[in-house]
Amino acid sequence: MLLSSYRQLHCNIFQVNMLSIPDVIRKKRDGETLSDDDIKLFIGAVTEKSIQDAQTGAMLMAIWQKGMEVTEIESFTREMMLSGEVMSWPQEWAGQVVDKHSTGGVGDKVSLVLAPVLAACGLKVPMISGRGLAHTGGTLDKLESIPGFNIQQSSEQILKILGSVGCCIVGQTEKIVPADRVLYAQRDATSTVDSLPLITGSIISKKGAESLSALILDVKFGKAALYKDLESAKKLAQSLGREGNGLGMRTGAVLSTMDSVIGRNVGNSLEVIESLEALKGNGPEDLMELVTTLGGILLLMTSKASDLSEGRKQVLDVVKSGAALLRFQAMMEAQGVAKKTAETLCSAHTDYFSVLRKSEHQTELRTLADGAVTGLDGLVLAQVLHKLGAGRSKAGEPINHSVGAELLVSFGQKVEKGTPWLRIHYEKPSLTPDQMSRLQNALTLGSDSKMQTQSLVKELLLPN
Amino acid sequence: MLLSSYRQLHCNIFQVNMLSIPDVIRKKRDGETLSDDDIKLFIGAVTEKSIQDAQTGAMLMAIWQKGMEVTEIESFTREMMLSGEVMSWPQEWAGQVVDKHSTGGVGDKVSLVLAPVLAACGLKVPMISGRGLAHTGGTLDKLESIPGFNIQQSSEQILKILGSVGCCIVGQTEKIVPADRVLYAQRDATSTVDSLPLITGSIISKKGAESLSALILDVKFGKAALYKDLESAKKLAQSLGREGNGLGMRTGAVLSTMDSVIGRNVGNSLEVIESLEALKGNGPEDLMELVTTLGGILLLMTSKASDLSEGRKQVLDVVKSGAALLRFQAMMEAQGVAKKTAETLCSAHTDYFSVLRKSEHQTELRTLADGAVTGLDGLVLAQVLHKLGAGRSKAGEPINHSVGAELLVSFGQKVEKGTPWLRIHYEKPSLTPDQMSRLQNALTLGSDSKMQTQSLVKELLLPN
Repeated sequence: MLLSSYRQLHCNIFQVNMLSIPDVIRKKRDGETLSDDDIKLFIGAVTEKSIQDAQTGAMLMAIWQKGMEVTEIESFTREMMLSGEVMSWPQEWAGQVVDKHSTGGVGDKVSLVLAPVLAACGLKVPMISGRGLAHTGGTLDKLESIPGFNIQQSSEQILKILGSVGCCIVGQTEKIVPADRVLYAQRDATSTVDSLPLITGSIISKKGAESLSALILDVKFGKAALYKDLESAKKLAQSLGREGNGLGMRTGAVLSTMDSVIGRNVGNSLEVIESLEALKGNGPEDLMELVTTLGGILLLMTSKASDLSEGRKQVLDVVKSGAALLRFQAMMEAQGVAKKTAETLCSAHTDYFSVLRKSEHQTELRTLADGAVTGLDGLVLAQVLHKLGAGRSKAGEPINHSVGAELLVSFGQKVEKGTPWLRIHYEKPSLTPDQMSRLQNALTLGSDSKMQTQSLVKELLLPN
Repeated sequence: MLLSSYRQLHCNIFQVNMLSIPDVIRKKRDGETLSDDDIKLFIGAVTEKSIQDAQTGAMLMAIWQKGMEVTEIESFTREMMLSGEVMSWPQEWAGQVVDKHSTGGVGDKVSLVLAPVLAACGLKVPMISGRGLAHTGGTLDKLESIPGFNIQQSSEQILKILGSVGCCIVGQTEKIVPADRVLYAQRDATSTVDSLPLITGSIISKKGAESLSALILDVKFGKAALYKDLESAKKLAQSLGREGNGLGMRTGAVLSTMDSVIGRNVGNSLEVIESLEALKGNGPEDLMELVTTLGGILLLMTSKASDLSEGRKQVLDVVKSGAALLRFQAMMEAQGVAKKTAETLCSAHTDYFSVLRKSEHQTELRTLADGAVTGLDGLVLAQVLHKLGAGRSKAGEPINHSVGAELLVSFGQKVEKGTPWLRIHYEKPSLTPDQMSRLQNALTLGSDSKMQTQSLVKELLLPN
């Protein structure tokens, strides 16, 4: 009786100040602005699992429909961040802890190159990455194609690796932003993924929980990106930048084209090989443009460089000197890869497939006409590779690291009919004639042989 | 392995023709029109519980936001109906099985009077009613204040009672429209109750499953109703009428005012008493207006009367003759009430409280000024009684049948300061000074002593 009376009293006190979950849903349903308390109530209930799933689904859809004001996104992002552990770093690293986030692309192996580059430039890079879903690849999946690489590291281990190596690439721990784990899974099931406030809250809360000094965002737009046009991508970049800076991280953004593929290789093992080649100084131009731009901005924002071109130069220097490659080797060893394996991967003129698994079958596609290579639909390529086992349709599904594709031509290159232009690596399921024909259609041959390689980076948004 | 392959094949076949649940949610989210197959998929998944609760919540919110076209409401209502058992009646009852639905009011005891009246007029009335929630009362709760009254009857028992008595008032069985049980509970939790397509589907699917010949709807508007204005109520009435007629029931609707209370008594036991008095020929004018109008229309729609005024007359005749009262007595006995109890309740000049529970305390409120009674806010009265235990805040909570109020004055009546105008029946919790003051404020005294009693019924919508 006493307990029940106490609870009732307690509830009544709450009722004076706070709405109930259905009240908060109703407010958002009607397009009203949620208060800090409303959002705290919602995120608190999600974290404690005291909200009904149907209520979470309704709230996500109401947010999708009505959007959020800047003040609401701020509060939503902060409450998400505070739903779990917030990391802390040694005093002497102040101003030097950085990370990068990409909204997802095809062949996007930038993180694998950028993390050791920045460590070699003297920054601390606790890179918390994700797995691939549907046609997008995931940095963690790529790294797991290296035998022994362990992406699960505790906060203590992360601290230790950052101290010795300067960078690590790890999965999200259970303790970081638990509210996002719930919402992220439900957004997928409820068709509420593409909502500016929900995307902003999800990305920035997790970066906020890393207690970063600076953050660079690679927001992609185009055929193979979540946002098809520059304008929508820019809105997202502005929202992410605003919230990142609002949480005290110097946050910059790059708007980059994502129509075809980044670099030449797509698929987990094949992208590790291309990343290692990049660290050895043989990176393709477009990949290196992203690495130098994103890295240069981070060096600028942490005052390691006085301007962007100096930042870019530092990036190129640590690649040229081999310092970045050594960091990658050290990171692999620190994250569980055998010394021998790491050395083999990092030596010059190595046979990568002595360490990485090679697919059982490779098939080369040949051009069907004469012409100049003017385009490749990266989304189609990614979808075919996904079907062949390179990606997963549901969280938790196994993937085949050896599946992938190598682009054998470059943009603007003149080709004759019958020139090999794509090598597909596959096992089971086998490549079907229908898939081969989809891939052939994804390649555009034109008459314009004077086409210049276009820069991927379209716009920079830097903090004041 | 075989089973899993079969399932995969089966799924693939489905995927060719049908979308997945997230796809259907996305369509409604974007305001597209759902196909019959889309709605079948959704309702099927709700019925089989194969849908995630978060998905149901998101879908309900998307429907709330985007509404539904007439074709979608039609399909939604039909699929809901077909999610469970559809009743069937003996051939000789063809054209005679009727029911009534009200959108909910304060002091709305019309069903208790109307069911036996219609049975006495020769119709079959399988009235499936609901319980009260929040400030609205429920017909089942009212009947359960009669000792022994059993609202749970199987389809077989309903058939038997209709054969012998002609009417019964029962709760929804587990087998009738199971999809609505799920959606109804979730609509409450997700703030998606007040959606025209969802209300239409919920009400009409259940009436459709009763395989009615004719249905009359009492759609209320005003201070104490779900809809505050005539226009919104009319839209709902039109939607309900369209779908009812679409399922093959002749469906009419009455738009009636719901500002104060219907009759003089509010509260479960007190409303049973007022209903019995009405069946004994002593019903208040407003209650009898609703009973004769709703009953008259049903008699007209089933061709038992050639016009509305003849229908009204038949209603008044079976009240005057005592035939309706006898049907109520027989119904009580058929639904478990002891013969002695039923007889006591139905005899003239009886002491109702020898059978029904009387509250421990009664308090009379007195007018605070001279004037004419011009208004009473029925919502405030209902909210206070709800707090005193007459209603429940959550499905499944117990209620106190003895709690209620008697209005001691009539509209237009001239009163002097100090005239008793309301008698509150209560037990624990006790009536608070704050509640008394809220009730006093709910009464409007004006100078207009010439005010006419206004008709509750504002508009009739009859099928062609």
